[in-house]
Amino acid sequence: MKKIRIGIIGYGNLGRGVEKAVTSSNDMELIGIFTRRNPESVVTATGAKTYSVTEVENFKDKVDVMVLCGGSATDLPEQTVKYIKDFNTVDSFDTHAKIPEYFERVDKAGKESGKLGAISIGWDPGLFSITRMLFGAILPDGNDYTFWGKGVSQGHSDAIRRIKGVKDAKQYTVPIESAVAAVRCGENPSLTARQKHLRDCYVVLEDGADPAFVEKSIKEMPNYFADYDTTVHFISEEELKANHSGLPHGGFVLRSGKTDENTKHLLELSIKLDSNPEFTGSVLTAYARAVYKMANKGVTGAVTVFDVPIKELSPLDEQTLRKNLL
Amino acid sequence: MKKIRIGIIGYGNLGRGVEKAVTSSNDMELIGIFTRRNPESVVTATGAKTYSVTEVENFKDKVDVMVLCGGSATDLPEQTVKYIKDFNTVDSFDTHAKIPEYFERVDKAGKESGKLGAISIGWDPGLFSITRMLFGAILPDGNDYTFWGKGVSQGHSDAIRRIKGVKDAKQYTVPIESAVAAVRCGENPSLTARQKHLRDCYVVLEDGADPAFVEKSIKEMPNYFADYDTTVHFISEEELKANHSGLPHGGFVLRSGKTDENTKHLLELSIKLDSNPEFTGSVLTAYARAVYKMANKGVTGAVTVFDVPIKELSPLDEQTLRKNLL
Repeated sequence: MKKIRIGIIGYGNLGRGVEKAVTSSNDMELIGIFTRRNPESVVTATGAKTYSVTEVENFKDKVDVMVLCGGSATDLPEQTVKYIKDFNTVDSFDTHAKIPEYFERVDKAGKESGKLGAISIGWDPGLFSITRMLFGAILPDGNDYTFWGKGVSQGHSDAIRRIKGVKDAKQYTVPIESAVAAVRCGENPSLTARQKHLRDCYVVLEDGADPAFVEKSIKEMPNYFADYDTTVHFISEEELKANHSGLPHGGFVLRSGKTDENTKHLLELSIKLDSNPEFTGSVLTAYARAVYKMANKGVTGAVTVFDVPIKELSPLDEQTLRKNLL
Repeated sequence: MKKIRIGIIGYGNLGRGVEKAVTSSNDMELIGIFTRRNPESVVTATGAKTYSVTEVENFKDKVDVMVLCGGSATDLPEQTVKYIKDFNTVDSFDTHAKIPEYFERVDKAGKESGKLGAISIGWDPGLFSITRMLFGAILPDGNDYTFWGKGVSQGHSDAIRRIKGVKDAKQYTVPIESAVAAVRCGENPSLTARQKHLRDCYVVLEDGADPAFVEKSIKEMPNYFADYDTTVHFISEEELKANHSGLPHGGFVLRSGKTDENTKHLLELSIKLDSNPEFTGSVLTAYARAVYKMANKGVTGAVTVFDVPIKELSPLDEQTLRKNLL
């Protein structure tokens, strides 16, 4: 059987996660990793070939799906509409507020070029979105709750690192157990941001930095920390490296609903990940397979997790799926 | 907006569940409930109109989707291919081993008539099938585990009732906590049927029946009980009515997988239902909406949960879904 030829653009943590997932999928072949750095300076985990992003256009007929592993702030809004001119794409665009506009742009570009792009793939947006939608469609009379963590938020860690006097930092988002328990009991509580999660920060200071200033700057930072109970721990660089170098994450989607006054139902998806980028890379890889299959059926433009029939994610044929997994 | 016109064929516990779900869906209208009984003898929970099944053909142009609420053993194999000649259908056919053959028959009949049937809808097969497939496609290097319960198995309860000397019975399927815990710890255990679930039976004897014979008949019954640790409690009819009249159920799908030697991930869906038929009825109702939408796009034949894009289950339009739920 012909293998699905995959390219990866961007080789950070997420790119490495996709590399691992693609190379362990029997129905896929990793053609190359495209980087903005000098490709010869990049050593890949699996020995995959590296190329400069300037060479991407030479791969028009050699790659079936490009997995875009850049960031949502500046990379993806520019890259996806550019690369979808020549390739089917998958990306993990996760700026929730900008998804509708992003969808329209990718959809238009894909329909013009005859290519397909799956946008906003991962676990949230992604698996958690599927779950919220599915649970809500089945139990319309109810409430849903999403909790994240315990896990490292890279956005919040970055925000701390931008404060003057901070050398390095890791921020853990921690769901508040009593809130999760109240939801699981079917109490349908109304919860503020502060009641759902707390934020735990491990910070390495630069020599001579003022800890009081750093702590205040963190705790009062709007959007990121001001609405949460935040704890700041100052630790050494060695301790950060030894105890906080991983990128674990996880979370829950719960829906508590009823079909009659006294007939309640509780649905819950929970995930616990040793490595957020490796898991997210695995989700992107499964959707790269779906994009390949759907593009072969003539679908073009943009799709999200809501549009993709689940069967398209599997390497198994439909008869086998019905026989073994239904 | 035009409402989706729903009919229900069969008015047992599941039919009542669908009735409740349809009447609380703003985008749907319940046209009628079709029964093999004298329709005038049937009092519906919501005041829905009842008709004899012999009148179904008069509703060809009045019902968009028929929800078939008969049993899998004899009703559905006969009914679905019959009614799909005139109607789009949804059913909960759950005899796992016979699904492939059933799919082919419904697919052929639907393609001939130009109608669409969603088969094997519910939570298992159904939501749990989606979950097993999705989890497995994302984490191919792993194992999945399905646990059912604690809940009433109607099939096992019926099997006990067929034993000579049994007046009534309820059987609870109970997941074994130590097995669930071992899976949640990522131990990837190999588990026999006996190690995963135990069976707890509450039995009312007929006057003069031999409890030793009944207990032995239950515990040695092949397929149903012989492979499990089974406990039999003899209780009075009053006690059965007072403490065991509900139909709660639930279960878990867990997948424990890894993306590297020491990088593990645990995914879990769990559901806890006060009423199995009301929840299953809610799932069938959401898929009736999907069938209506997909049939309007020209899809015919049979589909399963693997084929239906998640968005089709929702009454919300695609823009709203992307904006609010992605």
